[in-house]
Amino acid sequence: MTIDWNDTFAKRALKLTASEIRELLKLINQPDIISFAGGIPDPAFFPYDNMAAAYAKIFADPKKRAEALQYSISEGYTPLRQWIAEHLATLGIATHADNILILNGSQQALEFLGKLFIGPGDRIIVTNPAYLGALQAFSLYEPEYVTVTLDETGLDMKALAREFEKGAKFLYLTPDFGNPSGVTLSLEQRKALLDLAYRHNIPVIEDTAYEKLRYDGAAVPSLLSLDTSRLNESAPLSDPTSNGHVIYCGTFSKSIAPALRIGWVIAPTPVVQKLVLMKQASDLHVSTLNQMVMHEVVQEIIDSHTAKLRDVYRARRDAMLAALEKYMPAGVTWTKPEGGMFVWATLPPHLDGAALLAASIEKERVAFVPGAAFFPDRSGRNTIRFAFSLVPPEKIEEGVKRLARLIGEISAAAA
Amino acid sequence: MTIDWNDTFAKRALKLTASEIRELLKLINQPDIISFAGGIPDPAFFPYDNMAAAYAKIFADPKKRAEALQYSISEGYTPLRQWIAEHLATLGIATHADNILILNGSQQALEFLGKLFIGPGDRIIVTNPAYLGALQAFSLYEPEYVTVTLDETGLDMKALAREFEKGAKFLYLTPDFGNPSGVTLSLEQRKALLDLAYRHNIPVIEDTAYEKLRYDGAAVPSLLSLDTSRLNESAPLSDPTSNGHVIYCGTFSKSIAPALRIGWVIAPTPVVQKLVLMKQASDLHVSTLNQMVMHEVVQEIIDSHTAKLRDVYRARRDAMLAALEKYMPAGVTWTKPEGGMFVWATLPPHLDGAALLAASIEKERVAFVPGAAFFPDRSGRNTIRFAFSLVPPEKIEEGVKRLARLIGEISAAAA
Repeated sequence: MTIDWNDTFAKRALKLTASEIRELLKLINQPDIISFAGGIPDPAFFPYDNMAAAYAKIFADPKKRAEALQYSISEGYTPLRQWIAEHLATLGIATHADNILILNGSQQALEFLGKLFIGPGDRIIVTNPAYLGALQAFSLYEPEYVTVTLDETGLDMKALAREFEKGAKFLYLTPDFGNPSGVTLSLEQRKALLDLAYRHNIPVIEDTAYEKLRYDGAAVPSLLSLDTSRLNESAPLSDPTSNGHVIYCGTFSKSIAPALRIGWVIAPTPVVQKLVLMKQASDLHVSTLNQMVMHEVVQEIIDSHTAKLRDVYRARRDAMLAALEKYMPAGVTWTKPEGGMFVWATLPPHLDGAALLAASIEKERVAFVPGAAFFPDRSGRNTIRFAFSLVPPEKIEEGVKRLARLIGEISAAAA
Repeated sequence: MTIDWNDTFAKRALKLTASEIRELLKLINQPDIISFAGGIPDPAFFPYDNMAAAYAKIFADPKKRAEALQYSISEGYTPLRQWIAEHLATLGIATHADNILILNGSQQALEFLGKLFIGPGDRIIVTNPAYLGALQAFSLYEPEYVTVTLDETGLDMKALAREFEKGAKFLYLTPDFGNPSGVTLSLEQRKALLDLAYRHNIPVIEDTAYEKLRYDGAAVPSLLSLDTSRLNESAPLSDPTSNGHVIYCGTFSKSIAPALRIGWVIAPTPVVQKLVLMKQASDLHVSTLNQMVMHEVVQEIIDSHTAKLRDVYRARRDAMLAALEKYMPAGVTWTKPEGGMFVWATLPPHLDGAALLAASIEKERVAFVPGAAFFPDRSGRNTIRFAFSLVPPEKIEEGVKRLARLIGEISAAAA
C-alpha cells in the first residue's frame, strides 16, 4: 500500500497552487530578454557598506552578539519596534512599540491576518486587481472573495458601501501606488472608506509596501494615521479598549533590502496580542541578528537612502511613461503612478495578456506579467503589469518600443 | 459602535493562548535564581568568530552580496540544501536537495505540517509528554489529540498499534532525547513503529532537534534513514512516486545558533512541493544572507563545533544526574538521557509541579518547568522538566540540592 498524499492533505492545502508569476520568473532569466516582470528592488542600490558595518559592529560587541544569536521574544527586537514607532510619529502616525509586531516581511503579516480572521466561506473584500501575494496568503483559509474595482479614479466607493453593508471579515488594500495597479487613493476616498469601516465595524488591512517610494505629488496620510487621529485621546492604539479599525502592514523590503526578511504589523492591542501568540507558535521570532542590523542601518540611512532610491526609480518611471506615450498604439491605456514600481496597462479587449506574453517573449524578447492573476475573479484578461524597478531607462524605452510594435501588428492583423 | 475582536477572529485563533513556559521565562530572569527552566543553548558557546567571518566574506563578494540581500526562491539556498543532503548521507540518510525545504527553524516545519495535514477534528497521534511548541503549532488547526505514553522504556507500542488501527493524519515524535522527556527510542521500537506506519499508511513526523547532542551510547538510525533504506531503489525519496512515510524536521538552532532561524524539513516529493508553495504564500523564503552564512559556517565547523558542545553539555548532564542521585528523596524518579538538554522527573503523586515551582522560586530560588503543559490531556501534574544546558556544573549541584531539600520538607509535612 502507498500513501495517497492528496487524500491526506487538509482541504485548505488543495488551494496551494504554483504562482504564475513565480513560475514565469524562472523562465525569463535570460540576458537578451528585457524584463518588466519582476517587481523587485534593483540590487545595485542595496546599502551593502552600511549593512556590512552593522554586522561587524554587532559581532564586535560581546553583549550584543550573544543577544543576536540567542532565542528571543516573539514580539520582535524592542529597540527596532521603538524606532518604527518614533519614525512613524514623524509621518503623523500615533502608535506605540507595544502595538508593533516584527514579522518575516509584510507577507507574513498577510498570512497571519488570513489565519487570524478567515474561516471557510467568510467574506473578505479585496480590490480588483489586488496584490497576488495577499491572495495567495488569504486563499489558504478558504475565504469568499468579494471584489471592488480599483482603477485610475481610485476605488469604486459605491460598490464598497454596498459590500460593507453585507458584512465582511476585513477589507484589504494598498492605498499608495500598489502592486499591480500603481493607483493612489485620494484623501477624500480614504476618509470615506474609514467612515464606512466605522459604520459597519469592519477592520481595514492597509498594505504600505511602497509608501517610501513616492516620486512626486504630496504624500496622502495613511489610513492608520487617519484612524489614530480620530481615536479618542483617552484610548490610543495601545489601550486595550482602543477602537482602532486599521491594521497596518509595513516592510523594509523595498526601502532597504528584502532578504533580511523584516516587516511589521501594527494593530489594536487585542489583535496584536493574538498575532504575537501566532508568531510564537509559527516560528518563534524573526532572526534577532537581522533585526539588530536593520535597527542600526535604518537609524543611520533611512532618509538619505530612500531619497537616493526615489531618484533612481523616478527616472525609470518617467522613462516608462514617456515610452508608453511615444510608442503605444491607440486603444492601450495605462496608469500614471506617483510612486512604487508598477504601471498597469489595459489592452484593447480583443487582446489577451497571457497570449501577448508568449508572443512577446518569442518575437520581441520582452517580458511582463499578464494581469488576470491579480483578479480573484480572473477577469482582467486584457490587462498587463509593467515593473520598471529593475530596468535602466534606455532599456525601458527599447522594451516598450518593441512591445508596442508587436501590439500594433496583432491589432492590425485582427482588424 | 466598537469592534468586538473576539467575535471577528476565526475559530482557530481562539486556540491561541499564552505559553506557560514563555510567560514563566519572563519572570525568572533574576540573577539569584538558579534556573533549569530554559531549554536553550548556552550563548557562551556560539561560534561568533566563524559567523562574523562568514558575514564579512559575503559582503566582500559583489556577486554573493547581491544574491544575499535580494528576493530568492522559496525552496531555500541551493548550496545549503545540497550540503544538508551530503551531510545526512554521511549519517546513512539517502535523500536529495530537491526534497529539502529550508524554513525558519524546525518550528516553522511543525506549523506548516499542521497546516498541511490537519482539518478540524482530525486525529493526530503525539507522545505523552510531547514538545510543547509542536502542540502549540498543531493546535491552531483544531486536531483531536491522541496520545501514546513515552517513558524510560520508550513508546507504548501496544497503544500505538491500537491508535494506528483507528487511523490518524500523522504521528509526531522526537526519537532522540526529546524535549521534555530525554528518552531515546530503541532501534527495535523504531523498526516496529515504521512497520506499523506502513501497514496503516500513516505519515510519521520525526523531530530531530537534539540529534547532534549525543553524549554517550551509539547513535540509533533515524526513522528517515530506516525509511529511505527500505524504499525500493527504483523509487528513492526524490521520485514523485516514492513511497516514503517519514517527514524529517531538522535544525541548526541547537548545533550552531537559534537566532539565524534556520531549520529544514525533508519529505517525499508530493509533500515537499506543497510545503514550498506554503512557504511562498507564508513569507516567501528564509533570509538568504543567513542561509549563505550558515552554509559557510557548517561546512567549516559542524563536526568540531558539535564535538565541543557535546563536551560542555555532557559535563552538565553528568552533574545533574549525579546531583539528583545524591540529593533527591525516595519517591522521585527521573530519566537518564543519552543526549539533549533535558532530564524529566516524576514526583510522588501528592506533589504538583506548578505548586512546587511557586514554592521553589519563593523559598529556594530554583526554577524548572512544571510538566503538565507537555501533556495534551493535561495529565502529568506530578512531573517536572529540568534543562541543564544553561547552568554550569557547580550551580547544577547547588540547585538540585536546594530543590531536593524543599521536596523532602513538603513530603515530610504531608506524611
